[in-house]
Amino acid sequence: MKNYTTLILSGLVIILAAVLVGVLTYERNQPAEERAVQPLVEIAPMEPDSSKWGINFPNQYDSFMKTETNNTPTTFAGSSQFSWLERDPRQVILFAGYPFSKDYNDDRGHANALADVRATGRLNLDDSNPKHTPATCYSCKSTDNPGLWDELGMEAYDKMTFNEMTPNINNSIGCANCHEAGTMRLIVTNPALKEALAAQGKDWETFTRQEMRTVVCANCHVEYYFKGDGKYLTFPWANGTDIDSILAYYEESGFKDWAYPDADTPMLKAQHPEYEFFTANSTHYNAGVSCADCHMPYVSDGATKYSSHDVHSPLLNAEQSCGQCHTDTQYVTNRVAAIQEQVASTKIQTEDAILDAITAIKAAVAAGNADAALLDQARKLHREAQFMWDFVSAENSTGFHNPEYALKILAESTNRARQAQMLAAQSIGDTSLLSTGTYYVTPTP
Amino acid sequence: MKNYTTLILSGLVIILAAVLVGVLTYERNQPAEERAVQPLVEIAPMEPDSSKWGINFPNQYDSFMKTETNNTPTTFAGSSQFSWLERDPRQVILFAGYPFSKDYNDDRGHANALADVRATGRLNLDDSNPKHTPATCYSCKSTDNPGLWDELGMEAYDKMTFNEMTPNINNSIGCANCHEAGTMRLIVTNPALKEALAAQGKDWETFTRQEMRTVVCANCHVEYYFKGDGKYLTFPWANGTDIDSILAYYEESGFKDWAYPDADTPMLKAQHPEYEFFTANSTHYNAGVSCADCHMPYVSDGATKYSSHDVHSPLLNAEQSCGQCHTDTQYVTNRVAAIQEQVASTKIQTEDAILDAITAIKAAVAAGNADAALLDQARKLHREAQFMWDFVSAENSTGFHNPEYALKILAESTNRARQAQMLAAQSIGDTSLLSTGTYYVTPTP
Repeated sequence: MKNYTTLILSGLVIILAAVLVGVLTYERNQPAEERAVQPLVEIAPMEPDSSKWGINFPNQYDSFMKTETNNTPTTFAGSSQFSWLERDPRQVILFAGYPFSKDYNDDRGHANALADVRATGRLNLDDSNPKHTPATCYSCKSTDNPGLWDELGMEAYDKMTFNEMTPNINNSIGCANCHEAGTMRLIVTNPALKEALAAQGKDWETFTRQEMRTVVCANCHVEYYFKGDGKYLTFPWANGTDIDSILAYYEESGFKDWAYPDADTPMLKAQHPEYEFFTANSTHYNAGVSCADCHMPYVSDGATKYSSHDVHSPLLNAEQSCGQCHTDTQYVTNRVAAIQEQVASTKIQTEDAILDAITAIKAAVAAGNADAALLDQARKLHREAQFMWDFVSAENSTGFHNPEYALKILAESTNRARQAQMLAAQSIGDTSLLSTGTYYVTPTP
Repeated sequence: MKNYTTLILSGLVIILAAVLVGVLTYERNQPAEERAVQPLVEIAPMEPDSSKWGINFPNQYDSFMKTETNNTPTTFAGSSQFSWLERDPRQVILFAGYPFSKDYNDDRGHANALADVRATGRLNLDDSNPKHTPATCYSCKSTDNPGLWDELGMEAYDKMTFNEMTPNINNSIGCANCHEAGTMRLIVTNPALKEALAAQGKDWETFTRQEMRTVVCANCHVEYYFKGDGKYLTFPWANGTDIDSILAYYEESGFKDWAYPDADTPMLKAQHPEYEFFTANSTHYNAGVSCADCHMPYVSDGATKYSSHDVHSPLLNAEQSCGQCHTDTQYVTNRVAAIQEQVASTKIQTEDAILDAITAIKAAVAAGNADAALLDQARKLHREAQFMWDFVSAENSTGFHNPEYALKILAESTNRARQAQMLAAQSIGDTSLLSTGTYYVTPTP
């Protein structure tokens, strides 16, 4: 009898030990954000302090914090804070009359977003000036936003000035911009994204986790504008997210970011439309690849697998990033270089064409006797050409996120710019406006 | 003793049977052209009659013969003999003054090459006319050529007229254009290709078999021209095979295919530069993929594996073709469609720009008082723009062989065409030449 008992007990011990090992192994192999059922500390909803989330998720937090200092350049951009205006002086002219002509540095990592927006020379922070910067400019810069949007509503938030909002904003981009505390699931936090998706009949709550690994990036990495006097953050997606639909939206709304000096073209500044660009039939998107697959690859810390939150160009860690799918990463990075070189050189030709259009339109305006209808047609084409160019130029991949789309858009932009130049010349019947130039030397990154 | 003998003999029988099965299996798995050590019939060197080669290689021959009737269209081309001039009437204007404006059908399969060149309305076969068609036009149409080049030399061949050569030409493209009888190895047969490679310091005899699976296609699928009065078949590769080097070559040589009527632009007709286009840093070429990998995939007849010689668009047999490397061929063909749609629509915009340039240059010439230097600059840009467009348009893949390259070239072509238009307007100081049009409806294939 005693022997039977021992046998049964021993058996139970063995079975339980096996189950325990199995459970632990399974847990270890789950991505961290899915294991977060028993947090070490409770995270308050929309907690803005990422370091508190970091207690439960040290690997994610430590990798995220690398975005503060890991500002390595790539051939064409990366996370280094170089000046686009110095590298390519054409952009000083392209953005004349707009703050981007004063200060236009490339973006650094997420942890620097708040410091960098406060330091940029683009902001007009003199509240005695009616054109003061709205609080809306903080929308993509801080983990304080989800809580503030929840508390104030986005409408009230956007009606405040940047300076008025400053005391409420203490943290750069971080955990609360993409994750729900407690469940750690990926969520849409930006009300403008919720509204833009809803307007398309899409409910992000129904999206798969893999879809969310792209959609959360659209909390910020999109084209947007500040709508109306209330500077209401709005994505121009009502007609769709392709560039023709976005241009049609802006055309219908009559919106302009600024009027080009001495040309009076109603200009549009593209922001950073990575989401629209990548999802427009790109090969990686169509293959089911998400933003996070390349920019936040799974890495390991001992036996723990986690998604790196040191978000930057995959060219800086191609083995980890591209290597998740591609075996020959040297081939892949060579391929990226071949694509980016072709996009970068085509982009410069487009810029030269737009500069020629600007020169011609300004001359036609200065002449004082231009045919108004022709001149307006020229301005419309100038507006479209520059937005199309900027859609590719401001998008953070030098075309790689969608190479054919980039080059097709640049071809159309160049065509429109040349047509704008021709219409300006026609408007005053002066063929001397048809000069073409190569402006400055081609930038060598 | 008897038992031992039986045992040894039985052992030997088993070993020999195993070796025999091994050898047979190995042989069966070798590509047919590498097994051809013991031909059924002897093939004479440069034998022009492909049916004789077919006795030894019935699978290759039977599949080759399918190119006669298997003329299936794809969305944008394929092997059907549709008229480009009917599908896209812009091309009637683009090639005005040149035979391609009279008759320009898409190409059918290899077995039809000879019949189709004899049937085309492009040839001027009236020998009483000094502009008669040279024999050089047969260069890519017949298996009789290797023997004729060997016998006559290419210089004498090219000095004959098409009609003089006709009695010597009895077979369409076939085995002898790419294979050496006896060894069945892939060889360069076109003297123009030998010379073009040699001028670049390349000896095709040192190429690997995989390299030859691309290079043999360059016997014909290249850009070429007829040099001098002797109509000497020449590839314009002395500076390189990229489009800038080819344009520079033509610029240095001062060659023109024809003068554009009433504009007097020295025009260039691009042929079918698949080789130059594909090898210019395309992703498939850089990955080591050959033309034959996609266009002549390995298929099986029972246990026999052979390379299909029914050469046509891989879109028509994507499972066999793309499926050799890609698991999801539906994804791949969707990708091809996305690329080709973008290239095709961009190409039409380029055509409209060139038509505008032609209209302007003709008007400037007609005015009679144009600034000669400006008008010549306009012509130079017209020449370059149209050759760049044609390089993409005549290339048989609607950009797929090298998508970024296609779109970059089209962007540059559009820019040059618009600049040509502007210079023409400047040359007579008339801004009415700056009209832009959308010519005809966009073709729906």
